[in-house]
Amino acid sequence: MPKLTLYFGPGACSLVPHITLEEAGAAFEAKPISLRKGHQRTPEYLALNPKGKVPLMLVDGKPLTENIAIAYYLAKSFPAAKLLPMGDLNAEAEAMSLLGWCGSGIHPRFGALFAPQKLCDLPDSADNVKKLAAEDTAKNFAMVEKMLAGKEWILGQWSVVDAYLFVFWRWAGFLKLDLSGYPNYAKHAARMAERPSVKRALERETSAQAELDKAA
Amino acid sequence: MPKLTLYFGPGACSLVPHITLEEAGAAFEAKPISLRKGHQRTPEYLALNPKGKVPLMLVDGKPLTENIAIAYYLAKSFPAAKLLPMGDLNAEAEAMSLLGWCGSGIHPRFGALFAPQKLCDLPDSADNVKKLAAEDTAKNFAMVEKMLAGKEWILGQWSVVDAYLFVFWRWAGFLKLDLSGYPNYAKHAARMAERPSVKRALERETSAQAELDKAA
Repeated sequence: MPKLTLYFGPGACSLVPHITLEEAGAAFEAKPISLRKGHQRTPEYLALNPKGKVPLMLVDGKPLTENIAIAYYLAKSFPAAKLLPMGDLNAEAEAMSLLGWCGSGIHPRFGALFAPQKLCDLPDSADNVKKLAAEDTAKNFAMVEKMLAGKEWILGQWSVVDAYLFVFWRWAGFLKLDLSGYPNYAKHAARMAERPSVKRALERETSAQAELDKAA
Repeated sequence: MPKLTLYFGPGACSLVPHITLEEAGAAFEAKPISLRKGHQRTPEYLALNPKGKVPLMLVDGKPLTENIAIAYYLAKSFPAAKLLPMGDLNAEAEAMSLLGWCGSGIHPRFGALFAPQKLCDLPDSADNVKKLAAEDTAKNFAMVEKMLAGKEWILGQWSVVDAYLFVFWRWAGFLKLDLSGYPNYAKHAARMAERPSVKRALERETSAQAELDKAA
């Protein structure tokens, strides 16, 4: 097995591969960086990931970026952990579709909620940018809610997609969005929070955050 | 082989799977819809794709959405066409990373350029939204430009990623962005335009557009 190194920002979407590595039982080096302090824009980091974002996973020193690609790599590297469906092309494609939607559809609207000025930097525009993003997020969450009806996990059995959905749920709570209309999603998040892999990843991210806050 | 039906909006990002189906030599039914006339928001369409977007591919009637998932499905279904790297996990993951970036990083900023009011609908905000999106796009194109240095195709041999990059190039031209700083990318687009698959897909989209414009 190649050496795996995960760069993550505590609480950021890098929590997806962080949980995934824990689910896989993989040995990996954890490299927390502070997005607030701009560690993702240092020359050292940009040399590894010119996009200046997390997640970044080094595979024997070679950079791999984008949640969907890291999920794919880990699912193929740790088949026993069943991180994504495998062997049935329709099921595989459905998983890729959900991960693709997480990355290209749901995630960018959270970007607008967290950093509205990146989309419009006119004075007094932030509230409008956030309002539209919250409306889109409500529509996205309504779709997730429907997909989760009668299911423990979005694909039937647990997959990386559930980790991505859990990250969105946490963000929505952090942003104090109205989550009362999504009981299936709420139960899904509660189930996620009980998984040992999730507890381990969250504990590591919490300690890392404290260390990063203390550092200069 | 299952029956494949591609719903596409002429000129939209559904050109990616359209080119891919032509590259695969796949038999498929082409279903053009007019995004301008809102065909993606009809009850019939939303029943197939609640996201109200293209592309949508039916596989024996079952909806599959998101460019990355359709690319994956077609690459696995038509291995002889070598639509994506296969067999070498690192190469597969690199392709997924690029497709992931196209969908989650490059594409959303074009969304802002085409429909700024979806991100901020304050009066007189559109120019600001577009300016920021154009700046991000320039950074993204500079990264693509660097990746294409000394290469005919972004992964060495042709792949679906090249089709996605070609769509962005066309959009940038349509939007009259300054493309003078990307000679490698310009040559890449010229090579793409010469491929028979691309010519066939573009011809079909042009005729479809004319038909859709004529219709009520």
